[in-house]
Amino acid sequence: MTLGSDVRGDAPLGPRPGPFFASRWVSAPGHVREAESLSQLPAGFRAAGVACGIKPSGKHDIGVMVCDGPQPVSAACFTPSSAAAAPVVLNRQRCRLGELRVVTVNAGCANAATGRRGLDDAARVQGSTAVATGVAPEQVAIASTGEIGTYLPMDKVTRGVLDATKVLSAEGFDDFQRSIETTDAFQKRASLEVSLDGGTVRLSAQCKGAGMISPRFATLLCFVQTDAALSSDAAQALLRPSVARSFERISVDGQLSTNDTVILMASGASGVRVEAGSENYARFAQALDAMMRQLAILTVADGEGALRVGRVVVHGGDPADAELAARAVANSPLVKAALHGGDANWGRIVQAVGAALPGSEVLPVDIAIEGVPVCAGGAAVDKDQEALEQAVSASEIEYTITLPGARAGDPGVEVLFSDLSHEYVTINAEYTT
Amino acid sequence: MTLGSDVRGDAPLGPRPGPFFASRWVSAPGHVREAESLSQLPAGFRAAGVACGIKPSGKHDIGVMVCDGPQPVSAACFTPSSAAAAPVVLNRQRCRLGELRVVTVNAGCANAATGRRGLDDAARVQGSTAVATGVAPEQVAIASTGEIGTYLPMDKVTRGVLDATKVLSAEGFDDFQRSIETTDAFQKRASLEVSLDGGTVRLSAQCKGAGMISPRFATLLCFVQTDAALSSDAAQALLRPSVARSFERISVDGQLSTNDTVILMASGASGVRVEAGSENYARFAQALDAMMRQLAILTVADGEGALRVGRVVVHGGDPADAELAARAVANSPLVKAALHGGDANWGRIVQAVGAALPGSEVLPVDIAIEGVPVCAGGAAVDKDQEALEQAVSASEIEYTITLPGARAGDPGVEVLFSDLSHEYVTINAEYTT
Repeated sequence: MTLGSDVRGDAPLGPRPGPFFASRWVSAPGHVREAESLSQLPAGFRAAGVACGIKPSGKHDIGVMVCDGPQPVSAACFTPSSAAAAPVVLNRQRCRLGELRVVTVNAGCANAATGRRGLDDAARVQGSTAVATGVAPEQVAIASTGEIGTYLPMDKVTRGVLDATKVLSAEGFDDFQRSIETTDAFQKRASLEVSLDGGTVRLSAQCKGAGMISPRFATLLCFVQTDAALSSDAAQALLRPSVARSFERISVDGQLSTNDTVILMASGASGVRVEAGSENYARFAQALDAMMRQLAILTVADGEGALRVGRVVVHGGDPADAELAARAVANSPLVKAALHGGDANWGRIVQAVGAALPGSEVLPVDIAIEGVPVCAGGAAVDKDQEALEQAVSASEIEYTITLPGARAGDPGVEVLFSDLSHEYVTINAEYTT
Repeated sequence: MTLGSDVRGDAPLGPRPGPFFASRWVSAPGHVREAESLSQLPAGFRAAGVACGIKPSGKHDIGVMVCDGPQPVSAACFTPSSAAAAPVVLNRQRCRLGELRVVTVNAGCANAATGRRGLDDAARVQGSTAVATGVAPEQVAIASTGEIGTYLPMDKVTRGVLDATKVLSAEGFDDFQRSIETTDAFQKRASLEVSLDGGTVRLSAQCKGAGMISPRFATLLCFVQTDAALSSDAAQALLRPSVARSFERISVDGQLSTNDTVILMASGASGVRVEAGSENYARFAQALDAMMRQLAILTVADGEGALRVGRVVVHGGDPADAELAARAVANSPLVKAALHGGDANWGRIVQAVGAALPGSEVLPVDIAIEGVPVCAGGAAVDKDQEALEQAVSASEIEYTITLPGARAGDPGVEVLFSDLSHEYVTINAEYTT
């Protein structure tokens, strides 16, 4: 998430047109289909979003999501940053993260680097939500996104919480979604139906993020709801690996936010049980993975100013080296500028890998762009320049890097990343705190 | 160094107007003064630069620097990249790096990622230089800068080496300087006089670099000459720490080049001896340090598209943490975009430090920008916003970060860095390999 609260103009955002599962890097499992409405919350949830005046534009900036099930189950992941924002600190210290009933989120102010006062403010948001919804404070998680180093306007926020809780409804998806947006250019959201043994469950999510995106061990803001009856064990076991395979594999600008938060809530309202290790668990995990992965790719595609999405896959090497190499390529401003320009500049990939894995011996690395070999054993190869230039003008570009020791069938280490554009510089240089 | 050979127009470059020691972050020692001509080579050196046709523009692209002293002494540092270019590999494997007599350098082609053929080409450049100058091949170092993954046009290069060696002269500084330029916007060069016990010696340097700059253990291209009679020990002992205090403390884009090379050559022609550990050694080291540091800052100031130079200094923490934090700030595209925009966006600094030093406890970091405190104990402080905005519109901006455990007098860990501009994106997205 980034510092600008709403710098991209006034038109209301919508989701990208077309099917949700649009990336060639995600395959929707056969038992998952899109709900008829992209704004369908699962049974047992109510949501709302209102404008309370944090964003100068008057757009939505407070959202509340409530899980009404008798025994809600939840799981959460947060940023590992040691500059974690007050809401993250509060959630860790004061919430029963496996039994959350409510999430209150605001945009326009990150409540980060705000010290004791920020923690007190966060506790007041939690407390006023608890009072307004009749839920124990420990079951209310909070999240913020927006500018770092400024304080929440508490009068407005408290009023906003009250206003939002008064209009909670099963149709509140859109308003909640709008209340978490900052520099996003389109909405990253999902509303799916998942066929399980015992019936069909719903799975939905609202996600935001445009800059300061390179989550590790956690992610940007993403709220996930399901009416499946997840066991507590299942919820815990599902979320972390799914985040690891989705939001932790993306980078817009290599920057780790102070506010990254993912929260999964299950109402159980469908009555369809999902126990850890069951067949339903495997099917639900596939659905969750596909959804999170598509949302992560949408988040990259909506990287500030992004035109294209790159995917680097590193095969071979030891896992730590492969990870270093993949991150180095994904975060290289030279590689990202070339991606933006539709330039098949593989020399910059060689550079990034060589820098990530220093050594006095030349590393015999192989590189292919969109399947066209460009480098073998560390050296240039003759290539079809025209085919290559054609390939890199697409909207999704794949870079394959093979280090020594790669074995057949090795899936490799991937990172998905956005390009570096003029608009990224404009958004981040010309927006003044 | 970067991939573009000469994308910045056709006007010949010059040095920046004004005194060489222009940065407030470098103080010229009292015993060092600028030579009357910025193009003065020390006694015992001849240089040349010619156009041989590697650069499509027809600009200079082959340079030769010869040390004529009876017992030349040298020292060299190279990139730690495991994608090191052929000339770097050749220098390491085949040169007597303490007794170099000649350096041959080309721009327009990095001879990197060129495999066996690239190594053969490099050996031919070394060999033809050796023949043309009558020097043993092991005393000829070579260097290249330019595009990665393309081969040297050997017919042109061999002719260029011959042409250059025919016009070697004590007045060849300018031509040599021109032959190493790629996307540089101005010349980074020095010609100094250093008062030592026993007489005055000369110290000069030619330096290039505009993108792909974040040297570790070595640097971009920098050639240093002196007529001091350095002992072999002294040359070795001098270069590495001086590089560590200058070029290893800068970052334009966090990218490590495949071709980074620094070579110091001493002709001894002045007859003024500099032995390791002597008083002259200390005085010479001060002069070398100041020169290298100013050249490093000029290199940052000439970062592709750069408008301002930032200096981050991290006090406290353990040394590894301080280094991580300083690099994270210097390489953060968000911090760099704010530097470009003249935006005192300290929240991005908090973010970068928090991400570099993950932890579940909030880190009580203090931050000041140009001496104005903006964050104390990890939280915002009331500040003079007008003074702050004034300060960040200057051409050199200092960021001071204090981690727990800082002690009085601790000089801190510094990194000097450039801003992220539209021009950086233009240069690197629109230049096609």
